[in-house]
Amino acid sequence: MIKSFLSPLNKPNILLLTTSLFGLSACAQINDNETPLEQPKNIIMVVADGMGPVFPTAYRYYHDDANTPLVERTIFDQFYVGSASTYPATESGYISTSIASGAALATGKKKPNMFVTDSAASATALAAGVKTYNGAIGVDQDKNPQLTVLEWAKSIGKKTGIAVTSQIVHATPASYIAKNVSRKNYNPIADDYFDLRVNGKLKVDVMLGGGTKYFIREDRNLKNEFVTAGYQYIDSYEQLNTLSPTQPVLGLFAKDALPAELDSKQKNRLTTLTKTAIKQLENENGYFLLLEASQIDWGAHSNDIAYSMGEMKDLAATVTYLKSYVSNNPDTLVVLTADHNTGGFTIGARGEYKWQPEYLKNLKSSPKAMAKRLADKRLSVDNLSNELGFALKSEELKKIEMILLEHTLDNHTGDLSKGKIKNKLVTRYYGYIKEIINLRTNSGWTTTGHTGIDVPVYAFGKGKEMFAGFQDNIEIANKLFTLMGKK
Amino acid sequence: MIKSFLSPLNKPNILLLTTSLFGLSACAQINDNETPLEQPKNIIMVVADGMGPVFPTAYRYYHDDANTPLVERTIFDQFYVGSASTYPATESGYISTSIASGAALATGKKKPNMFVTDSAASATALAAGVKTYNGAIGVDQDKNPQLTVLEWAKSIGKKTGIAVTSQIVHATPASYIAKNVSRKNYNPIADDYFDLRVNGKLKVDVMLGGGTKYFIREDRNLKNEFVTAGYQYIDSYEQLNTLSPTQPVLGLFAKDALPAELDSKQKNRLTTLTKTAIKQLENENGYFLLLEASQIDWGAHSNDIAYSMGEMKDLAATVTYLKSYVSNNPDTLVVLTADHNTGGFTIGARGEYKWQPEYLKNLKSSPKAMAKRLADKRLSVDNLSNELGFALKSEELKKIEMILLEHTLDNHTGDLSKGKIKNKLVTRYYGYIKEIINLRTNSGWTTTGHTGIDVPVYAFGKGKEMFAGFQDNIEIANKLFTLMGKK
Repeated sequence: MIKSFLSPLNKPNILLLTTSLFGLSACAQINDNETPLEQPKNIIMVVADGMGPVFPTAYRYYHDDANTPLVERTIFDQFYVGSASTYPATESGYISTSIASGAALATGKKKPNMFVTDSAASATALAAGVKTYNGAIGVDQDKNPQLTVLEWAKSIGKKTGIAVTSQIVHATPASYIAKNVSRKNYNPIADDYFDLRVNGKLKVDVMLGGGTKYFIREDRNLKNEFVTAGYQYIDSYEQLNTLSPTQPVLGLFAKDALPAELDSKQKNRLTTLTKTAIKQLENENGYFLLLEASQIDWGAHSNDIAYSMGEMKDLAATVTYLKSYVSNNPDTLVVLTADHNTGGFTIGARGEYKWQPEYLKNLKSSPKAMAKRLADKRLSVDNLSNELGFALKSEELKKIEMILLEHTLDNHTGDLSKGKIKNKLVTRYYGYIKEIINLRTNSGWTTTGHTGIDVPVYAFGKGKEMFAGFQDNIEIANKLFTLMGKK
Repeated sequence: MIKSFLSPLNKPNILLLTTSLFGLSACAQINDNETPLEQPKNIIMVVADGMGPVFPTAYRYYHDDANTPLVERTIFDQFYVGSASTYPATESGYISTSIASGAALATGKKKPNMFVTDSAASATALAAGVKTYNGAIGVDQDKNPQLTVLEWAKSIGKKTGIAVTSQIVHATPASYIAKNVSRKNYNPIADDYFDLRVNGKLKVDVMLGGGTKYFIREDRNLKNEFVTAGYQYIDSYEQLNTLSPTQPVLGLFAKDALPAELDSKQKNRLTTLTKTAIKQLENENGYFLLLEASQIDWGAHSNDIAYSMGEMKDLAATVTYLKSYVSNNPDTLVVLTADHNTGGFTIGARGEYKWQPEYLKNLKSSPKAMAKRLADKRLSVDNLSNELGFALKSEELKKIEMILLEHTLDNHTGDLSKGKIKNKLVTRYYGYIKEIINLRTNSGWTTTGHTGIDVPVYAFGKGKEMFAGFQDNIEIANKLFTLMGKK
């Protein structure tokens, strides 16, 4: 059943060798400077997916109390220490002369680095300290598996965990655990969570997030394999309080990703999962915990600032909890950064010197959920203002009626209430609700993809000084390795 | 002739009183903590107008050597210490119920802060440590004059200077020197440079930049007034080396702003002016020098990334010079920040994960200069590729021919070679050249105005530690006041 020598890359030995080579140096002090390095007992790495520097700024203004003359600081502002570059590896190959003028760019030069990363390359950089190609999960440019900080932590006797709001096999958490040439191979990545071992042991003690469909499959039931190996399995938030603290745990709370914060019955779900993860991980040797606010990115991919701000709110609650945890457990280090920026979102757009986040403060559900319920006729156009938390203008209401009329005409031969045709209507409604919000707030966007701006770095607790100033994302992994005694 | 009691606000006494009140405490140590504050002898404040965090990131990739696997660090990366918020003062007044739904936003609340600043409000924040309204020059929300760090430096016996690439009466330098209800009042602002005094003395010992038209006017010749008061006046770069080091200086090198770096005969003009300013300012009591890379903002307002990158290059050369200066003069503090972000520029756009700055590296002049020369027929369409430094495609060349054809048809009744009609053609050409560059580089923009993202803060030399982490822009002024002994 255990396929630990059958990684999709046929190179599992490299990883096993690497971890066992260093297995004995476990808790030694490691730096050669005069003062011994203060190693934190616990390390909590927080990845805010897609959270370029504009999102914490926007959250500050979203969070502001309009009744005070100055803007209130956020939990993020308290811990801002630096920034990080995120570019992926230079692509291989050479530029052809066709894109360059004869004089300007000589032939035979290396193909230019495109500078804009995806989540897999940047998570591999943050996890393993290597630049790689977009799409790579825990492997370098030559597709060789790379040792990650989570694996290193496990090899030196710490407990390890992840708590995320995506499916737990999504690019960011996957890069800390699995080895795969492509982030798209979700099932083989899920297999790696069970099959790849550190010193013969299962790699992750606590896994919380979404993704039952990848763990309970027709071809393989990983959930049962984990249970047989001694894991507790839960699939509802209520069960979080019933866990035995001594047994490892797999908790999957949705078929795929968790619902958006704006739509989640469990409010501040990342905060909730974080509290449980820490409770399960605490032990005398310490732990490494990866948290991911996975969906700031997804809101931004959709150019949906209401969605992203909902996710920022959960992240802020999580960091607020971590602040109190670190004040009681000062031998803990928390590092928070983003893997890249998403959406090219701007605070202000179209020549107007204003941004109005008050239009984001009273949504009762996510714009996409509103669109779905409009299409299902579970939400009437008349009630949309109430759902958004601000009054729609008559021309906006008319436009929404027109969307349905146009859609009906365009699809008069099909069944409007089903499948792809209904989804097209959802897409139309969703697009228009986002347009209303982007115009009311005066938000700008330049892409449905990522952009290359440096991301913010926050740190507090023991060892935070190491993350001050500018750094590349691979240095964050390397600093964590150093803080865990790896030379 | 001296109008020092006739400020446009009729409140000059407040300023004079404030500066003379503190005149005696000059060089005293001021903080009450155990360790006395280390006061730098010289302070160089650098404002990079419009340089949100995306510009130093973009400059890193523009500056990168494509033949090495990792991206080279820039001079900015070495000195990155924190970030700053830039929002202006909350606007007065109350929101009407019309923009709020009954439930969501109660009546009678203060009008929301719009969060996006202009250069005048943010320069006043950086200069005087107060939040004010957009457009305000050195005055607060109630239009009261505010004491600035430059004035304080003068009052404690330091020499003072400015070196900028705009007209020297533009919003940023003006906010450190003049007091006016509106940045648009250039002539009264220029008058303030001569008329407003600190302890009876002229306020600024060295002024270098553009703007003869504001100083040599029909109604008043300020240049002559400065010369009569003992200033050296120069108007060419060649004269920079002929200055007496003991006399103050007014140097104006253009009628209005200096030409863009890409079009300037004097390469790295800010660097050049900086070297002279420092040479003129050095004295045993130290100095305060304001530098402004004024035109990063102007490139971004035009959504012209080639223009902005040219300005970044000059700024980088300036900071490189300052680094060597501070290593020889360690009692100097350099702080570099931006007043706001401009343009909503993004590294990557339109769903594509790439940015290609190689198309910005070989321009022979600015895109606007190319457009002007195309309209003047001093540049042929065939030579445009050579001027841009990359080969235009045949469809792009055809489009440029079509622009002229359309323009000729649209304006067949007028003289194409003159005035407004010619300017329209320049605008058309300029727009299309920028479009080509934005598409080739894959740059995105959301506005021709400003956006509200936090800006980066760089610091080196004595006292740099004070600027680490997150801060509001008014705190930068307050830290400088503290470092100059003002309680």
